Amino acid sequence: MRQPMTALERVHVTEVGPRDGLQNEERVLTTAEKVALVRALVAAGVKEFELTSFVSPRAVPALADAAELVAELKDVEGIHFSALVPNLRGAERALEAGIDSIVLFVSASQSHNAKNVNRSVKESLRDFEQIARALEGSPIELRGAIATTFGCPFEGNVDVRAVGNIARHFADIGVRYVSLGDTTGMATPPLVSERIWHLREVASGIEPTLHFHNTRGIGLANVMQGLALGVDRFESSIGGLGGCPFAPGASGNIASEDLVYLLTEMGIDTGIDLPRLIEAAHVATRLMGRPLPAQVSKAGPRLALSDCSAVPTARG
Amino acid sequence: MRQPMTALERVHVTEVGPRDGLQNEERVLTTAEKVALVRALVAAGVKEFELTSFVSPRAVPALADAAELVAELKDVEGIHFSALVPNLRGAERALEAGIDSIVLFVSASQSHNAKNVNRSVKESLRDFEQIARALEGSPIELRGAIATTFGCPFEGNVDVRAVGNIARHFADIGVRYVSLGDTTGMATPPLVSERIWHLREVASGIEPTLHFHNTRGIGLANVMQGLALGVDRFESSIGGLGGCPFAPGASGNIASEDLVYLLTEMGIDTGIDLPRLIEAAHVATRLMGRPLPAQVSKAGPRLALSDCSAVPTARG
Repeated sequence: MRQPMTALERVHVTEVGPRDGLQNEERVLTTAEKVALVRALVAAGVKEFELTSFVSPRAVPALADAAELVAELKDVEGIHFSALVPNLRGAERALEAGIDSIVLFVSASQSHNAKNVNRSVKESLRDFEQIARALEGSPIELRGAIATTFGCPFEGNVDVRAVGNIARHFADIGVRYVSLGDTTGMATPPLVSERIWHLREVASGIEPTLHFHNTRGIGLANVMQGLALGVDRFESSIGGLGGCPFAPGASGNIASEDLVYLLTEMGIDTGIDLPRLIEAAHVATRLMGRPLPAQVSKAGPRLALSDCSAVPTARG
Repeated sequence: MRQPMTALERVHVTEVGPRDGLQNEERVLTTAEKVALVRALVAAGVKEFELTSFVSPRAVPALADAAELVAELKDVEGIHFSALVPNLRGAERALEAGIDSIVLFVSASQSHNAKNVNRSVKESLRDFEQIARALEGSPIELRGAIATTFGCPFEGNVDVRAVGNIARHFADIGVRYVSLGDTTGMATPPLVSERIWHLREVASGIEPTLHFHNTRGIGLANVMQGLALGVDRFESSIGGLGGCPFAPGASGNIASEDLVYLLTEMGIDTGIDLPRLIEAAHVATRLMGRPLPAQVSKAGPRLALSDCSAVPTARG
């Protein structure tokens, strides 16, 4: 009786909890704790990870163990691990560590890029060309990420052409997968459509990955819009790890278990087993020592019998 | 540049916080506190409320002040107030109190209806006929609500024909608006489609209202599915009031401010002003004395400048 809502049969879910999720958390996990979390996620069937960043340990202490973490996971087979790098030096460290792909990141808005990497957008794009040349012939894959794709916390709305321009530059240096980052949760369904349509026009060589935050509660509504447009790559973090230290209670990335629950119920294959993913979410919750924003790991899968039917007996 | 995603230009949002939201909360509000909350919501442009229930005060102490609350709001003009009633006695109390409409409620699953109102579904439907006859010629409007429409916490999946059968009975006694209750958050996009299509076939006289809970995080994804099907009536609670006392952290109703944010950003008119709705959510948060699950009231509207850009400076 259940009909698929979309022609998509399979969707790729990249787990970004170890990087985007952990980098803003107050509690810094040890390398062994991160390894335990990643292994629990691998056991659930997760095949792609944004694992860490090769950035300044002073800037992001939570990810200072990037090389060590990659080394500790060397035995894990058939899994794609990526890491963010801001410049050539980071790329060289990532290459040396033996990561599968590096993610070159830039913001669509100037002021966010300046604050984030102390460069103009043009300078970042020039760095990327330099990195691409330096890594030519190496086994490492280059990917891209565009922060503030759907809006900037400093500038407000972001011109869709700024996103298209960066995507074209990525295509020019041979990047295929580009993540569209909803950095502070400003994406809306109409903006998702507008940006995807535009990229299909001006940078048809790239495959977009949608990376939503649930800051304003509509992360999975944006996923529905992405699915309706035929986008088949999404990023999420286990438990909804992340969030904003300045907005208590505000959510971070969309939660992997809520996303996989939605996709599975829509008849879309992710290769991920929901009950084991929920176990991984419980690992994350224990490690962080606080309740995480995800819902499915609290309520259980759909047919979990529930005590939550506290409706009134109403003979009155 | 923003294109409407749906042909809908206007959607009706009914606020159910004062009833569905408050009935499970540990903290019981005074009548004056409820009046303050309702008035804040009216000031934001909310035009329809599920205000209370005329049920046994022993069964639902939080709603024991039903008649008093209606009386206190007599001066509010142009607003539709409804109340749930389980039987003829409740209907008579509601009529006497002067409510605009009463909502006859029954569960699509037998075991939930037995636990909720100590009746078989058939007995409930017979009660409704009796109430309809007794109220003939009175100014009160009859509405319907079907709990466990998308699944039952005791029985699991619910046959769509059980929902269709109840909807037909409602149509037969002259009920036009029927709320489809996602009592414990088991709705999914394919189930939304299946149930709406079925009702259009077997009970075309009724207009469905979608009432989702965000228990598993996909409440607004289900709203997207409803909108794609052309459904233009939704129920939500301010702040996401409600939830399940047995699942700490699990959300209750979808949050009114997150829903109105989504609809407004999609170019759909609700008649509700988002900043003033967020003020009403802050009233609700103060009254409940705890953070509520809604996100938009924490993060602010989309273009609120945010300190939440704690991305790394990454010169490393």
